[in-house]
Amino acid sequence: MTTTDDIQTYMHAIGQAARAASRLTAAASTAAKNTALLEMARQIRLQQDALLAANAADLAEARDNGLDAAMIDRLTLTAKSIEAMAQGLEQVAALPDPVGEITDLKRRPSGIQVGKMRVPLGVIGIIYEARPNVTADAAALCLKSGNAAILRGGKEALRANQALAACVRAGLTFAGLPESAVQVIATTDRAAVGALITMPQYVDVIVPRGGKGLIERIANEARVPVIKHLDGNCHVYVDETADPEKALKIVENAKTQRLGTCNTAESLLIARSIAASQLPQIGAMLAAKGVEIRGCAETCALLPVAKAATEQDWGEEYLAAIIAVKVVAGLDEAIEHITRYSSQHTETIITENHSHAMRFLREVDSSSVMVNASTRFADGFEYGLGAEIGISTDKIHARGPVGLDGLTSQKWIVLGNGEIRH
Amino acid sequence: MTTTDDIQTYMHAIGQAARAASRLTAAASTAAKNTALLEMARQIRLQQDALLAANAADLAEARDNGLDAAMIDRLTLTAKSIEAMAQGLEQVAALPDPVGEITDLKRRPSGIQVGKMRVPLGVIGIIYEARPNVTADAAALCLKSGNAAILRGGKEALRANQALAACVRAGLTFAGLPESAVQVIATTDRAAVGALITMPQYVDVIVPRGGKGLIERIANEARVPVIKHLDGNCHVYVDETADPEKALKIVENAKTQRLGTCNTAESLLIARSIAASQLPQIGAMLAAKGVEIRGCAETCALLPVAKAATEQDWGEEYLAAIIAVKVVAGLDEAIEHITRYSSQHTETIITENHSHAMRFLREVDSSSVMVNASTRFADGFEYGLGAEIGISTDKIHARGPVGLDGLTSQKWIVLGNGEIRH
Repeated sequence: MTTTDDIQTYMHAIGQAARAASRLTAAASTAAKNTALLEMARQIRLQQDALLAANAADLAEARDNGLDAAMIDRLTLTAKSIEAMAQGLEQVAALPDPVGEITDLKRRPSGIQVGKMRVPLGVIGIIYEARPNVTADAAALCLKSGNAAILRGGKEALRANQALAACVRAGLTFAGLPESAVQVIATTDRAAVGALITMPQYVDVIVPRGGKGLIERIANEARVPVIKHLDGNCHVYVDETADPEKALKIVENAKTQRLGTCNTAESLLIARSIAASQLPQIGAMLAAKGVEIRGCAETCALLPVAKAATEQDWGEEYLAAIIAVKVVAGLDEAIEHITRYSSQHTETIITENHSHAMRFLREVDSSSVMVNASTRFADGFEYGLGAEIGISTDKIHARGPVGLDGLTSQKWIVLGNGEIRH
Repeated sequence: MTTTDDIQTYMHAIGQAARAASRLTAAASTAAKNTALLEMARQIRLQQDALLAANAADLAEARDNGLDAAMIDRLTLTAKSIEAMAQGLEQVAALPDPVGEITDLKRRPSGIQVGKMRVPLGVIGIIYEARPNVTADAAALCLKSGNAAILRGGKEALRANQALAACVRAGLTFAGLPESAVQVIATTDRAAVGALITMPQYVDVIVPRGGKGLIERIANEARVPVIKHLDGNCHVYVDETADPEKALKIVENAKTQRLGTCNTAESLLIARSIAASQLPQIGAMLAAKGVEIRGCAETCALLPVAKAATEQDWGEEYLAAIIAVKVVAGLDEAIEHITRYSSQHTETIITENHSHAMRFLREVDSSSVMVNASTRFADGFEYGLGAEIGISTDKIHARGPVGLDGLTSQKWIVLGNGEIRH
């Protein structure tokens, strides 16, 4: 394909096939979907050598193109990561089927019964960067939720993604489902993304996964709803009545268990009345873990190791061994600070005061709000969703970790016996 | 305001005030919100004369501008419609408060409890045409669901809407809530709509109510999520095993109870095996009610009164005493026809066959799918929502009648006791 017209034609054909396949996946039995997923897992194990060879070719090209070490790391497949992909497919097969679930069926005074039935969204477009494992994950979640999927991976992973696509197609065919239920775009032309996000007649929702720049661009240009997650500037607020042991343990876990995840804490707020007694111990722990502290004036006075924070630090998602620390008057100032600077991902309060816990839960407007727990729990597996397609920091449709339910909608159903409206 | 810059400045000030007010309405107690609603109702009754006078001035101008009779009818306030508005506010006050509702709280293996809490969306923009009663309805639903609202009524109802806005403000003030929790835009300049739908920093969702043209324009130009309803080409399918009495009664009710509503049936499908025995009776009933029948060739052969349908008839929302009628082979063809031509609003099957009922429920992809009930039931009050802000034919976020729940979202809450992630 050399011209933009060719890409448009190619993408419209993919969209049309996906729309047609989505009618079949929506009506597919749970057994057929699970059979397909288990066969995909079997194929991925069978094709391990082919997958590693395709990945090796991708990696060689990536090194020639001078990709950085972090990107190379995300791109790399190993026997272990291939096995993890196969197990991921098996886990999704084991999850309950959300499609067709009927809830809230109630009889109305008119005699009709009114309820809701969970249904697929239709066609999901997934746009992602280096990690080839997203191909298997996303295919599994979309199929299990009765949707057709169009996957657009990064150009640096093209060969591995195409090899995975073959395993996915083999699984679909084995189960008698249409191959076009999961399509992996074969061109690396950027115009394909432009087309994918502007075909509302074929695509019902877009889930971009990757850097903030990619996601912002897609959200701005899409003519289709986007389930998006921008960044995670997560706060831990240590309240006046915090249990010092819980505070220390949770700050340590939230900041240092993994530095590069979106649910890692980036800011610590602490109530003035306990700052002098608790902050030195927390500061020492962070310093021992190699975490740089950027603090307000009061923090710097209490922690000689701290550097002075600038206004910019309060809004930063470091994804690194750095934390912003501010002493606040109490709950009100903590909520105000969070309202102003948070990215509405995840915040936690450490407190033994019930009223403060309830006010924090109610008034903090983030996708996950916690009491006495580490922000690191904000995750589809930890929440019991079984798997997640991403984390939404939006409020419309899906918020927080998005699992199978977030890839579905609910229609109303009415069961009558000849009732008419008066 | 004379320039577009002035309008932008005006709208940004409104947006900013709404965003600030939304933090207070989100945290407002149920009692304060209900007090405001009841005081609004009292004010509307008190101000009946002023409302009628403002409406009379609107009507005089509308007549001078040559507005058609249907528009004049929608625009007209009477003592009765003013009382209905006041009662509507009281009904919303009586509904349970959705905000803060905690559901699905479950303990996870890690020890944390994970659940969901219902929260307001934030700021809702409502764009509507002639009916001034939308001003009171929309204000009530947005406030009860903890949101701030920005209302943009039609220019033909400007005076009545401003008079209603004064009643709404009086209610807010009486309850100690900020006046800017509900703002009614005071300019009729079209640029105000353009600004309202492109301020994602201040507005979380737009609900347009009005003609298809208005809604399509808004959906195309908005940079904010839109809860929209385009049209209602609703189908009644009379299956092979339909009870003739139920079929006759439901077709009559679905088509003729009200001609101009979006849940009125516009198309009738009937299984071939029973067409000869049941269609003549249904046709006679429709003809007696003055309904024009536009049929397929088989329909025309069975019903001499029918005119030949064109391809266009299958996709039409008549909103008039006309119905399109097609004889189909059976359930499969009925579902295929609906999939192709329906606007995904509401469809009903008349059948005594359980498997057919279940397949229809599962496979028809509309916002409401019914068995042996009239399409006219697709309505927030009939479904038990207490009230509705509109009907969504989209799948994302809200589908079908949208009540208080549709104006809210759910955030995740985590209750811990010092748990950390391993």
